[in-house]
Amino acid sequence: MTIGVCYFPEHWPGERWETDVRQMADAGMEYVRMGEFAWGRVEPERGEFDFAWLDEAVSLVGDHGMDAVLCTPTATPPKWLVDEHPDVRQADPDGTPREWGSRRFTCFNSPTYREETERIVRKVTERYVDDPHVAGWQTDNEYGCHDTVRCYCEDCATAFREWLEATYGDVETLNEAWGNTFWSQQYDSFAAVDPPGPTPAEHHPSRLLDYYRFSNDSVVDYNRLHADLIREANDDWFVTHNFMGDFGALDAHSLADDLDFLGWDSYPTGFVQDRRPGKATTDELRAGDPDEVAMNHDLYRGAKRAPFWVLEQQPGDVNWPPHAPQPGEGAMRLWAHHAVAHGADAVLYFRWRRCREGQEQYHAGLRKQDGSADRGYDDAAAAADELFDLEPVDAPVALLHDYESLWATDVQPHSPDWHYWSHLRAYYAALRARGVQVDVVSPTSDLADYAAAVAPTLYLVGDDLAARLEAYVADGGHLLLGARTGEKDPHNQLHESLAPGPLADLAGVRVDQHESLPDGMPTRLRYDGETHDYRTWASWLDAEGAAAVGTYTAGVAEGRTAITRADRDGGSVTYCGCWPTDRLADELVTDLLSAAGVAYTSRFPTGVRVAERDGYAWVTNFTSETRSLSVPDDAAFVVGGETVGAFDVAVVETPAATLSLE
Amino acid sequence: MTIGVCYFPEHWPGERWETDVRQMADAGMEYVRMGEFAWGRVEPERGEFDFAWLDEAVSLVGDHGMDAVLCTPTATPPKWLVDEHPDVRQADPDGTPREWGSRRFTCFNSPTYREETERIVRKVTERYVDDPHVAGWQTDNEYGCHDTVRCYCEDCATAFREWLEATYGDVETLNEAWGNTFWSQQYDSFAAVDPPGPTPAEHHPSRLLDYYRFSNDSVVDYNRLHADLIREANDDWFVTHNFMGDFGALDAHSLADDLDFLGWDSYPTGFVQDRRPGKATTDELRAGDPDEVAMNHDLYRGAKRAPFWVLEQQPGDVNWPPHAPQPGEGAMRLWAHHAVAHGADAVLYFRWRRCREGQEQYHAGLRKQDGSADRGYDDAAAAADELFDLEPVDAPVALLHDYESLWATDVQPHSPDWHYWSHLRAYYAALRARGVQVDVVSPTSDLADYAAAVAPTLYLVGDDLAARLEAYVADGGHLLLGARTGEKDPHNQLHESLAPGPLADLAGVRVDQHESLPDGMPTRLRYDGETHDYRTWASWLDAEGAAAVGTYTAGVAEGRTAITRADRDGGSVTYCGCWPTDRLADELVTDLLSAAGVAYTSRFPTGVRVAERDGYAWVTNFTSETRSLSVPDDAAFVVGGETVGAFDVAVVETPAATLSLE
Amino acid sequence: MTIGVCYFPEHWPGERWETDVRQMADAGMEYVRMGEFAWGRVEPERGEFDFAWLDEAVSLVGDHGMDAVLCTPTATPPKWLVDEHPDVRQADPDGTPREWGSRRFTCFNSPTYREETERIVRKVTERYVDDPHVAGWQTDNEYGCHDTVRCYCEDCATAFREWLEATYGDVETLNEAWGNTFWSQQYDSFAAVDPPGPTPAEHHPSRLLDYYRFSNDSVVDYNRLHADLIREANDDWFVTHNFMGDFGALDAHSLADDLDFLGWDSYPTGFVQDRRPGKATTDELRAGDPDEVAMNHDLYRGAKRAPFWVLEQQPGDVNWPPHAPQPGEGAMRLWAHHAVAHGADAVLYFRWRRCREGQEQYHAGLRKQDGSADRGYDDAAAAADELFDLEPVDAPVALLHDYESLWATDVQPHSPDWHYWSHLRAYYAALRARGVQVDVVSPTSDLADYAAAVAPTLYLVGDDLAARLEAYVADGGHLLLGARTGEKDPHNQLHESLAPGPLADLAGVRVDQHESLPDGMPTRLRYDGETHDYRTWASWLDAEGAAAVGTYTAGVAEGRTAITRADRDGGSVTYCGCWPTDRLADELVTDLLSAAGVAYTSRFPTGVRVAERDGYAWVTNFTSETRSLSVPDDAAFVVGGETVGAFDVAVVETPAATLSLE
Repeated sequence: MTIGVCYFPEHWPGERWETDVRQMADAGMEYVRMGEFAWGRVEPERGEFDFAWLDEAVSLVGDHGMDAVLCTPTATPPKWLVDEHPDVRQADPDGTPREWGSRRFTCFNSPTYREETERIVRKVTERYVDDPHVAGWQTDNEYGCHDTVRCYCEDCATAFREWLEATYGDVETLNEAWGNTFWSQQYDSFAAVDPPGPTPAEHHPSRLLDYYRFSNDSVVDYNRLHADLIREANDDWFVTHNFMGDFGALDAHSLADDLDFLGWDSYPTGFVQDRRPGKATTDELRAGDPDEVAMNHDLYRGAKRAPFWVLEQQPGDVNWPPHAPQPGEGAMRLWAHHAVAHGADAVLYFRWRRCREGQEQYHAGLRKQDGSADRGYDDAAAAADELFDLEPVDAPVALLHDYESLWATDVQPHSPDWHYWSHLRAYYAALRARGVQVDVVSPTSDLADYAAAVAPTLYLVGDDLAARLEAYVADGGHLLLGARTGEKDPHNQLHESLAPGPLADLAGVRVDQHESLPDGMPTRLRYDGETHDYRTWASWLDAEGAAAVGTYTAGVAEGRTAITRADRDGGSVTYCGCWPTDRLADELVTDLLSAAGVAYTSRFPTGVRVAERDGYAWVTNFTSETRSLSVPDDAAFVVGGETVGAFDVAVVETPAATLSLE
Repeated sequence: MTIGVCYFPEHWPGERWETDVRQMADAGMEYVRMGEFAWGRVEPERGEFDFAWLDEAVSLVGDHGMDAVLCTPTATPPKWLVDEHPDVRQADPDGTPREWGSRRFTCFNSPTYREETERIVRKVTERYVDDPHVAGWQTDNEYGCHDTVRCYCEDCATAFREWLEATYGDVETLNEAWGNTFWSQQYDSFAAVDPPGPTPAEHHPSRLLDYYRFSNDSVVDYNRLHADLIREANDDWFVTHNFMGDFGALDAHSLADDLDFLGWDSYPTGFVQDRRPGKATTDELRAGDPDEVAMNHDLYRGAKRAPFWVLEQQPGDVNWPPHAPQPGEGAMRLWAHHAVAHGADAVLYFRWRRCREGQEQYHAGLRKQDGSADRGYDDAAAAADELFDLEPVDAPVALLHDYESLWATDVQPHSPDWHYWSHLRAYYAALRARGVQVDVVSPTSDLADYAAAVAPTLYLVGDDLAARLEAYVADGGHLLLGARTGEKDPHNQLHESLAPGPLADLAGVRVDQHESLPDGMPTRLRYDGETHDYRTWASWLDAEGAAAVGTYTAGVAEGRTAITRADRDGGSVTYCGCWPTDRLADELVTDLLSAAGVAYTSRFPTGVRVAERDGYAWVTNFTSETRSLSVPDDAAFVVGGETVGAFDVAVVETPAATLSLE
Repeated sequence: MTIGVCYFPEHWPGERWETDVRQMADAGMEYVRMGEFAWGRVEPERGEFDFAWLDEAVSLVGDHGMDAVLCTPTATPPKWLVDEHPDVRQADPDGTPREWGSRRFTCFNSPTYREETERIVRKVTERYVDDPHVAGWQTDNEYGCHDTVRCYCEDCATAFREWLEATYGDVETLNEAWGNTFWSQQYDSFAAVDPPGPTPAEHHPSRLLDYYRFSNDSVVDYNRLHADLIREANDDWFVTHNFMGDFGALDAHSLADDLDFLGWDSYPTGFVQDRRPGKATTDELRAGDPDEVAMNHDLYRGAKRAPFWVLEQQPGDVNWPPHAPQPGEGAMRLWAHHAVAHGADAVLYFRWRRCREGQEQYHAGLRKQDGSADRGYDDAAAAADELFDLEPVDAPVALLHDYESLWATDVQPHSPDWHYWSHLRAYYAALRARGVQVDVVSPTSDLADYAAAVAPTLYLVGDDLAARLEAYVADGGHLLLGARTGEKDPHNQLHESLAPGPLADLAGVRVDQHESLPDGMPTRLRYDGETHDYRTWASWLDAEGAAAVGTYTAGVAEGRTAITRADRDGGSVTYCGCWPTDRLADELVTDLLSAAGVAYTSRFPTGVRVAERDGYAWVTNFTSETRSLSVPDDAAFVVGGETVGAFDVAVVETPAATLSLE
């Protein structure tokens, strides 16, 4: 497993580069990512290219035994290009253009920008086509950052109409699929359909969902343009992209086919502040929430069921969250281990050196702006020293993450507290607290290899998906379905039958009612002899073939069924109608794991997690409290020992399920 | 009294309609409202009309012994119309058009849209002019929903200038009336006056008030266009409109003359979440606040002093409030009784069946989307069975609700906690807790029939109004005036004299000072030997002829007069300078009722109310607690009995004032 | 010292003016400010001037022994002018024009508006050029109120490009100075630079800082146009401007050269509600925070190190803060004394009479709208009677307030809790609680006269400034530097070396790390044997020559240096890396004062302050609690006595440092 770093030689005097690169190599780095924002430096005027600086940087990297990862620089076109072609800018729903001066403001559907993209990508790839030190390419940078997956410009209007025509064939089919009789929303032609602009009341949910799909497809196409050009230049190069954490607008699964592996950018102490409801604890502000970080690891791994890279790893304090507490001592090493335990093959810290210029001055690097070592440098070097080659993660359980369901519930959350990621995480954290590895996969994935599958909110369900889940259960799979599963058809209409629609027979259940409840209303149920709390959502179930195994015991719901379980051939289907709090989630997943014959640990406390890869178990302590491990007598520690200090890690050669805390 | 339902046959296959209509009739329904969003279905292309489906639906309704209420479909024009005439769209203050794709986005002043309105209204009314099953019409749908009373487009600019010219004659009169010397805001012509756009600081309050008046008048005119066309077609038809709850932008009183009766749309568990400050209790989330709902009943009844209809009654959980808790068991029946007790002659549930399509999928119906009975169906049938014909409500007390005062205090609330509806409700709830029926009327109403009148905030007072209130008191009326009454003249300028301006002599009081106070500052006063709390507002009074009956006892106000009372011939005038909390409001209204000789009950607890109509008393329990009634020995229960369970109702043939709780 | 008032004769009938003016004179007023919003009254149509009314008003003022202060009326141009020239309007970043209808919406860079300004200013100044009763002029009114310093119109785009060219000479220098390599933000010409518009992510901080500088310079230029025209007409007139409280967008220091003295508008009970984080106490809602008010006094005094005027003094309750509590009894007198103690030579109450018209109806005056005395009238008369002539304030300590540092930390606050004014106030309040007078001065001021200087956040530091601070310390000055000092260079880039950059050698310190911490994380340090709390910000210091005198004792920072002190020749430099809470700030400033040999009092409690001017000490009690003073036996009370009641004041002829509370 490999450590690397992101480097911006263009920000520093050329005479410093050799020192920088040597210090990277000294720390055991193997990859250096460069060039993702350098269009202005590479092509200062139209047609005038300057590659000398990058040539030298790549060459220095190679000279020191490392490989370069280059990036197509399309996230930040130069001003002259935008002045020539203002139409490349995206637009807000009210038509306001998204101006040059930050980044990622160009439209994925702009024919002009696609031409310019093709031109620059050809140029940069051709330049390094024979360079032995260039290992591969990152396409663009963080597609969709700052809410830019969705654009509302004229080019998008045209492309949306074409997309609809390609999807539906004729406008009557579209009217039918969306249900446009409602509020007289019928169209008489595809030309009549606009991007959703500012309206007094909410938009048609089917129209919005298709706009989100179309927007996602636009990014897929745009990325494919990059990938094709890169491979056309040199098919030995790998192609990847750096996705973001808990990022909902872009379906990571949908880009997987065009990438050799997925990468993502991991900022644990930022995510706990700006990407989930609720207040972060002091420990989380120091090291992040291991389940939040790991669910993203497992998502980008799950998208190809293959190792992924952390293309940007937080190196210290960062600029963009509300607050910038210093990470705990050793946290930068901890994060690298944690990523590897979850299947990363490389972890590149972002950035080498704190930048003196521009928007990211308050973003730490492994070195400070004066060149001296920053807090992360020794952590990174330690990680580089400790890590070793490993087989991929082999996960017994799948967690179904469906971006379209996320989009559709975003459109109609039906509660200010509904949060797709958090609801998934309720189940994910329960599995992880039991030391189980989880592939976060698309609902269209092949589930055959998984002993158990959890689908917390499979909101949109059509007949195809229902048939595949039936086959999975028929083959002995154990399936746990969560709240709101099966409420809608793929066009975001309610099913003609009650939820879970085409899953009703498989699950043996019909949803009689649902309600969303603010904090403070009584929410209690009984499951397996114990009383539990739930939150935010309650569907009232009618068991029709399944057994009622959980019952609401408070509020208007009192006496109604909350949870059902149906044994089906070798498999089983559990339907949980509410959003479980942590103890209930633990009961549900341990019952599922037991049924599926998956081994699990005793329950680990918040912030302490164990993960298995290739016969080794990682114990990662994201808390400021020291923990004592109990391990089998014959288990050998590869890193650390039985006492795991604050923000520390231990690696033991033993199955995860053999571990416990004292 | 009648139960009915809102039906959208166009959302369902024709073969289902007969079943649907039969189930309505089975439940005892008498009216079926249809067609309010069906323009796109009725006229799919310009000039191509399709009425067959509606003909059939009306005919089925008639066949089952019910009557249809049809609607002019102008709230949702088809896309082709807006594509042909983009000028029909409203605009935001900064000029951004309000786009097609939701509803009620068309401008009331657009000459094009008025033409189109006339065309389609003629068409639909002519179609059913001889149909014996059509009882009457609803105009458009919820004028002003989603903040659309006020538009800022070019057509409105023109219309506003004409309105001003018609109102003021010459621009000097306008400059004088508004007080445009302030900040050099004089106009040299009517052409120079624009709708209020985005300015760095606040707008001139007189300009805003007139813009709100003009906007209201635009709706009145637009509604009159509908009403005239409907009556022109068939003068036997009734004409009504479905107003909204706690809706301030549109003066319900001002449309009363053009309607045969008023209707409104009642969603009790939504209102407590999104239409008033403060957090809803669990009981309110289950059934609403009876005083919030009833004050709207009494407002739409008071506008014509005649029975009204609930044109949309909440049928179960609904889509638009933040949260969607399930209503309490029986709440849908409770609401129908409560409406009738307050003077409704018909209660139509919205909607028949949960819609599979579009924006309102999460809105329950009386039947679910699969056709099975939803929670409200049996409740509605029970209500239909229990209700009987009644004389109109006869209310002894008037509550003066002045939309212009609401608009003017919205412009200058002078405290983030000022809330016109809530301040009115402080007095209204006190009256209702004493079992007294209240007409919520315009200040221009004839008050002669009322023993007492309460004007919580009659902010704008001119000489005419003052003279009429003087006459009322001179004739023996008992008048209670609340905080901020008489602060301004009708042009939204301060009076030359101190508040209450032209009411000063009548009330025997001058306002020396006022202050608004955030929560947490001490607010105490003494009235009638007891210490009370108040909130938000304190006027310091100088009694000049009246007796000082309440005195502030805390803060800088200490020792100043808070409440005065003046005996005038047979009548009396009380002026309360502050916003009373509930115990003080109770003292004030019981003193008023006693003076006026109006009988009242012992004080009912929050959520439990008694209301009298035609010799019957309704006890409505909006709480989850069972209550025991004490009734006169000879009083006969028509519905229920002495024990009133959670969300239950009892109807007794006895005057309300004879009832109490045990 | 002088009391005066702001008067709008144009709002009242001419026959009333004599009464008004006589009542002013009766109260002991000496100045009457007029005309700042009267353009529409003075020039009702283009070229048609009406000065008769103002002539008469000035003449009445003179007849009663008072002087007029007139204002250029450019804050509110008439509608006809804007209709003729819509280009005079400012624009928001997205291009939306700021519309006529409130005030201060015209662009400082509009050539048209500059022409119109020149025209009207010539006209009004020429009119009164020989009038003996006009003492001087106020330019315009509250430049920048309602967020209007910064405009984004086309005229500003042009002017910004010219400003940049004048500043940088060639575009490569600009690219270098800003650091435009970051995110490909290089420009190829000045023409390519735009005002910062709406971008998906944040703007380049160097670009924003220069836009703020340019915007500030635009106001300076515009003000100079006024000042030059006024002096051209009559060089005996004084020229001033009324600045605002805690107003950051406009650098008061930068306008000082063009004004004879600075004025400002003081609204104590408004400022505590809307101009600082945190909830106001009841006492503050009644009288304001004396340190917040006084820091503005000292800022506008410090800008010229000369007496200033309060051009608008709160007269009672006001309209614009969220709430409008009545000021404490006597507060209006207290504020006048407090202003004079801090160096005011005149205090003009705003306004004479509560206005019946327009946006400020809810703003009290000294008289009510019916002409009767309002609460402030007697207070103002009392102050006029008690005040006497005094020499200027002589402050031993300078507090460095750097608007550019404020702008730059606004751009990158790095914490939602960062607030430049509040951080300065932490030190200022500590000094004031010890009875020390403080000049709030620009960092470019000559500090030679100050025994000690405090620079809470001198964020941007170049070599020049560093050299001047070195010279100050070398000359025996005692310097206290606070958090974030020296983080950036003047172009808003990080220094090449670690913070405090060019101050590192002087302070003997390097900043190793920094962090920002939300409330609730442990923040403790040890200084001088005591444990203290800090908030929001912590820099971890490496003492390199200085002594480490404070050490963090909690969190990841534990054991790191928080505070250093370096003795340098006769002087000293203290660097405090965190935002001190009040007890720590007291320790830091008393240590500083002791080192500098500045006398100070025992510590006064919150809300009670003592200030010395010309040998007299003012004790101002901004609380509702009575206080007892201890004074030297020979000290004579000029106003009040040893018992200082709620909102009362005492003036004693004695040095401030001799006073204490019992």
